[in-house]
This record gives sequence, C-alpha cells and structure tokens, in this order.
Amino acid sequence: MTTTIQTIEQEVLRIGKQAKEAAHALSRLGEEEKNRILLSMADEIDARKDDLQTANSSDLTAGREAGLSAALLDRLELTDARVRSMSDGIREIVTLPDPVGDVLRAWARPNGLEIEKVRVPIGVIGIIYESRPNVTADAAALCFKASNAVILRGGKEARHSNHAIAETLKEGGSRAGLPTHAVQLIGTTDRDAVRVLVQMTDFVDIIIPRGGEGLIRAVAEMSHVPVIKHYKGVCHTYVDASADLDMALIVCENAKVQRPGVCNAMETMLVHEAVAKDFLPRISERLLSQGVELRGDKASRRIVPQMNPAVDEDWEEEYLDLILAVRVVPDIDAAIEHINTFGSHHSDAIVAGENTVQDAFCRQVDSATVYVNASTRFTDGAEFGMGAEIGISTDKLHARGPMGLEELTTYKFVINGDGQIKQ
Amino acid sequence: MTTTIQTIEQEVLRIGKQAKEAAHALSRLGEEEKNRILLSMADEIDARKDDLQTANSSDLTAGREAGLSAALLDRLELTDARVRSMSDGIREIVTLPDPVGDVLRAWARPNGLEIEKVRVPIGVIGIIYESRPNVTADAAALCFKASNAVILRGGKEARHSNHAIAETLKEGGSRAGLPTHAVQLIGTTDRDAVRVLVQMTDFVDIIIPRGGEGLIRAVAEMSHVPVIKHYKGVCHTYVDASADLDMALIVCENAKVQRPGVCNAMETMLVHEAVAKDFLPRISERLLSQGVELRGDKASRRIVPQMNPAVDEDWEEEYLDLILAVRVVPDIDAAIEHINTFGSHHSDAIVAGENTVQDAFCRQVDSATVYVNASTRFTDGAEFGMGAEIGISTDKLHARGPMGLEELTTYKFVINGDGQIKQ
Repeated sequence: MTTTIQTIEQEVLRIGKQAKEAAHALSRLGEEEKNRILLSMADEIDARKDDLQTANSSDLTAGREAGLSAALLDRLELTDARVRSMSDGIREIVTLPDPVGDVLRAWARPNGLEIEKVRVPIGVIGIIYESRPNVTADAAALCFKASNAVILRGGKEARHSNHAIAETLKEGGSRAGLPTHAVQLIGTTDRDAVRVLVQMTDFVDIIIPRGGEGLIRAVAEMSHVPVIKHYKGVCHTYVDASADLDMALIVCENAKVQRPGVCNAMETMLVHEAVAKDFLPRISERLLSQGVELRGDKASRRIVPQMNPAVDEDWEEEYLDLILAVRVVPDIDAAIEHINTFGSHHSDAIVAGENTVQDAFCRQVDSATVYVNASTRFTDGAEFGMGAEIGISTDKLHARGPMGLEELTTYKFVINGDGQIKQ
Repeated sequence: MTTTIQTIEQEVLRIGKQAKEAAHALSRLGEEEKNRILLSMADEIDARKDDLQTANSSDLTAGREAGLSAALLDRLELTDARVRSMSDGIREIVTLPDPVGDVLRAWARPNGLEIEKVRVPIGVIGIIYESRPNVTADAAALCFKASNAVILRGGKEARHSNHAIAETLKEGGSRAGLPTHAVQLIGTTDRDAVRVLVQMTDFVDIIIPRGGEGLIRAVAEMSHVPVIKHYKGVCHTYVDASADLDMALIVCENAKVQRPGVCNAMETMLVHEAVAKDFLPRISERLLSQGVELRGDKASRRIVPQMNPAVDEDWEEEYLDLILAVRVVPDIDAAIEHINTFGSHHSDAIVAGENTVQDAFCRQVDSATVYVNASTRFTDGAEFGMGAEIGISTDKLHARGPMGLEELTTYKFVINGDGQIKQ
C-alpha cells in the first residue's frame, strides 16, 4: 500500500493539532498527578516486557534481512536489562523536582504591580531520533514531566519497537489520567512526515533532533520550528605552560581513551611550546601504548616522530575513535583562537596552574562547557547532577550544554495588580 | 552605479567575519571599560548634533520627494530633542548593571568538580529595523553593553541619518577603546543584503527584527539564524463574573484608549455572560464617547445595539486604532480558549475577584505576559523595571516578553577541577 504525500501531510497535521490541544490539558496537571501517571507508565512497561520484546524481534529480523551492521543491531535490541532500564529511567524522572511553576524572580513596581517570572511548559515538543528504541520512553517521560505534549518520530529500523513502547506508555498513562494525545508517535516512516513535522509552526514549539550529524543537519535545514541541537563534539584540551604535567597526563588520557566514541571525548590536544618537549613524549607514550593514532603538526612531529602528519581537515574532525590530533601553540591566545575557529563549541578544557590563564580561557573560549583542570568527559546531564538529559546543545539560544527538565520549559510573566492603569 | 549581488554578498560576509572577530575582542572588556566607551559615544552624539541633523535633512528631502507620508517623515526626523534623547538613552544604559559574568547558579559535585552557570555575551547580533534612525544608537548601545558585536541594517529612508549616527558612535567609541568592528552598519540598502545577513550562520548568532509584521515575517522566513521576534499584539481583557466592574471599567478603558497604536493595547474584550448586561452598556458608553468603534458578536449587540457586527476576521485583527472587538463568553474556559486560539501570545488580562479563576487564567493562557486586575499597557521594559528594551518577544525560546540586557546574553558552564577524570 502506498501512502500519498497528501495523506501523510494530513496525518501529521492532525497529530500536531491534537498535540496542541493536549498541551492545553497538560497545563492543568500538578506534580503529584504527573508523577502518578509516570509511575503507571513505568509499571506498564515492566508488565508488557514480553510484548515489547516480541515487537522488537520483528525489528531485529527485518534489520538482519536488511543487512544492518552488528553495531546497529545491538543498539536496536531490547534486552531484559534495557526494558528494565526504560522503566527505571521513568521512575528516576519521578524523583526529579517538577520545574513547572517555579518562580524565577519576583519583584514589585512602585505602582504596586507585582511581577513574577514563572517557569511554564514550552508546549509541544517534536523529538526526531534514530535507532535506539529506548529514546521513545526517555524522551516521552522527560517532556511529560515538564508538562509538554510530545510528538515522537523514531527511525524506521525500530518502528515496531517504538510503536509498542509508545502504546504501552499511553495505556499505562491513560489509566492514571494522562491527557489524550499528550504522547504521540508518528506511525509512518515516510521521510515527508519529518518535513511536515518541522514545518508546522502553528502546532509545534520546538524540535529536538537526536542522532548523527547528517540527521541533525537535514532537520535544521528543513525546519521552520526552532531546533535545539548539537552537530558534533570536536573537543579540545589545552596544556598550558603553567600546567601540572602529571595532572595533564591523566586528564588528557582520560578525555581521549576512556570512551572515544562519544561527543565529549577529546579530539584535539593543544600544547604550549614551553612544555611540549617535556610533555609530548610522555603523553604520546601513554596514548600510543593504548592504540591511539596520533596526528601531529610539524612541531609535534619534531618532538615525537611516531606521529602521523596532521592535515588541515584533522582540526575539524570528530573522530569518535582512538585518533588524536596534536598541535603545539606559542601561547594561550593561539590556543583560544584554534578552539574558537576549528572547534564545535561543545566542551573544551585547559590544564593550567596560573589563575589569569585559566580565567582568560574560560572567558574567551566560546563553548557551552569549559573546564579547568578536568576531563571533557564530564559534559553530561547526570554528571552535572541534573538527572536525566534530553540532549546537549551547542546552540546559544535557550539552552546551552546538557539539557534536562528545566531546559524543556520556558517562562511567562504573571502580573498581579489591583486596578493599575498606565498613566 | 549598480552593485552586483556577488559584491553585496562579499561585502556582507566581510562585515560578518569582522563582527565575529570583534565579538572575541569584546569578550575581554570589563564593565568599567564598556561604560567609558558608552559615555564617549554619548558625548560624541551631542558634539556632532549639527552633522547628524545635516545628514538627516538629506533623508527628509529625499523622503518628501519620494512622497513619504507625514507620519513617516515625522518618525524620520531628528529634532534637537531626539538627538538629545539618543545620547541620554546611552547614558541610561551606562547606569544599568552589566549582566555579563553573573553567576546564575553554582554548585559542587561529589567528585569535587565546581560547576558555575555563567552569563556570557551571545556573540554577534543582527538588528534589522525600519524608519526610526534613533534605533541605530539604542540597539548598538544595548548590544555593546552586553558585550555583543552588532550588525545594523536600517531602512533605506533613513540611510544618511543611520550612517552618520553609526560613524559617530564608532568615532566616539574608538577614542575610548571600542574594538574595531564592534558596531557596524550595512551600508547598501539593497534587499539582498538582508538575505545574506540572516543566512550567514557562521558569523551571526541571532537576528532581532524591529518593525511591522511584514518586515518581521519576511526576515523570519528567510533566516537560517535564530530570530527573536513578535509579529503583533492582539491583546485581550477578559472581564469575569467575579470582577469588580468599576475596576474593569477603568482597566478596559485604559487598555483600549490610552495609546491605541501600540502592540500592548487591547484589541478584543471578552465578557462573562453573567455580567454582560450590567457591564457592556457602561463600558460601551465610555468607549463610544471617546470615539471607539465597537464590533460585537450577536450576544453583545443584543445588549448594546450601537455596536457594529464583528466578523470572523475581527478576532485576529491588530487594529492599532480606536476599534474594539467584543464577545460575550459563557465561562472562563471559553475565554481562555478564545485567547489561545485567536490571540498573539503577547499580553492578556483578566479582571476577576476569585482566586481560582485568576489562577486558571494565569496558568492556562499561553501568553508572554498575563495580567490580573491591571491594564495590558504595562508590557514594556521600562514599566517592568528592566531599563531600556531591545524589543518584545512572543516566541517561547530564549526570551519571552520584554527583552532587556539580560536577554542579550546566553550562558556557559565553567567547571573547575583539580585533575578529575571520568571513571
């Protein structure tokens, strides 16, 4: 059966309209009610484990037939542990404080008007993601806890799993009072559905894409709705002349090798020329022995000949692998300029002893997260103590860095008077 | 002489690149330095009053020849008082606290990492505006005080004035240490320049358009850079069954007639059916006597036959004039639904005595600013005590309602450690 573009458009617009209505219903729910609904969702996931795994088998079978890589098939699979971690994830969200209704600031004016800046839900959030089906539960629960309606659009490889998870959330939730259409999944896997979703500005307030750079760029380019995103993490560590080199050694090693395939791993190391001769041989020995390929500029290679030559493209590359670009810089200004020019404004670190150097780095490096004497690997909602995160933003507006529940809210001004009029 | 599109594109890209460099230089300035620069700008404006007025005469002459309306010519004119209010406006910005560097939140993690969420400049801000030349000075000074580089693009009717003002700011500023290219005006009045400006995502972080709905829609549709905006103000006042009708009378009158041509004036009045018979004749008498045209639904016209009939379009109309749409509603839910459906999410008020009704209104009306027992006319940076405002946002991301200096900043996470690594 083929679906026409018109049908898809009508279907997605209908989902959008329903979400907007649900957002209004959600604005009436209090924290207790929301937590009860979330717990009911979590219980339903546990109760329906077998159904979820049956649906997941269909995806795995189709994936194997379509020749998906072992890595992709692994991400797709809903093991017992992963089902359990979905329901536990929801229970953890229950324990997080509800940001809605928080008074961010309150003040009175000379005419007696009382102004409050109050946290409120954003409204309708569209989440576009790739192969991991657990995102369906995580994203829905986070959006709901902040009183937002959510429209989910998962990858087609996980379509049976996503459908089963979404239905489970809805049934568990409804039993405890989840407003109709507060959680919706776009059923069709047609690509036109994404276009309609990101362009229906009347119904959708924000789009959060989660996945590879290709997906995110495609969404950002098509979207008329504001998109919060990060394309990639080209993270740096700069080792200053004033650094404690023993500390630099463990910080750089950790940032590169502890988990190289993630966005907050270090991709480029910059070293002040005054300590390069001392530091580079030591760090290189450590990294080479762990299978890291080093790609150095000329000055680095003069000191460590085992390095391969770095080409221009290396400075902008997100390897997500055991590869590190290395450059010797004459001073902190050159380090900052390198990071601001070639980096992705995600997470960048300095190892330095001098305060003025640390301060200049923190002030002038234009990134969501800047570290002094610590590994870049800490950029993560849980590590920040924010609880679950919906993603990381390298944008500058609204949210920057790890995004948790608070970042799924906006604010309004509520003003109380007793008949004030403008003179 | 004609300018090719390529030349315009190169020129605007060059301005963008320079602004990005200036943004970096600006990140090094402290509050005292910025205030000294602002004062020097203000003094230069006073000192060059005659030059500014000579440039302004060229615009006025060209405007008269082009047949601009008297209202437009009035907005264009730089009288002595207006020049003075530009320089005084800058001096007022000097007195506002510098938001940059404010620590929004600080906490420590169990592993000893100290996390600070710190206010930082956004970077490069593009301001697109229409005929009032004073925006050149106001916007440049506000953006600069928050350590942002600004790219100004004014209307072609004011091009000589804008050029003269921008040059004056730059000269006054440079004398006190303004970084080169921190304030730039796009000289060409070609429309292609706007397209290039709003699409150069590598150099511009945010666009703020100021002007009529047509300008703002055109900018928003073309832009790849995030735009903060408000299209229009279709503001409501809802008079509840529990209202003090004497208060409702003065609040509604003020919201409609005190200055009808502005975005926070009331355009639609909603009245609970239980008080319509009592209230509508009284408010109508007041408004009709002040020349207000009333456009009512059937129920309103049954009570006040002097009303003209309202048609569907009236509910979405921003009259900016002495016209008021009037509707009788059965309950607060209907009022809220009307406002969320037809309103512009700008400023909406309730007059009511009952707390539960007030709370429902504040919670469920999806607007930037909601008022209880006060006139909508207070939505304004100065009235909120924020000092000067760069505009009003009806968007939900980043900034909502009046935008002052704080809204011209973003934040970053600054994390201090002593060698922490991820386990």
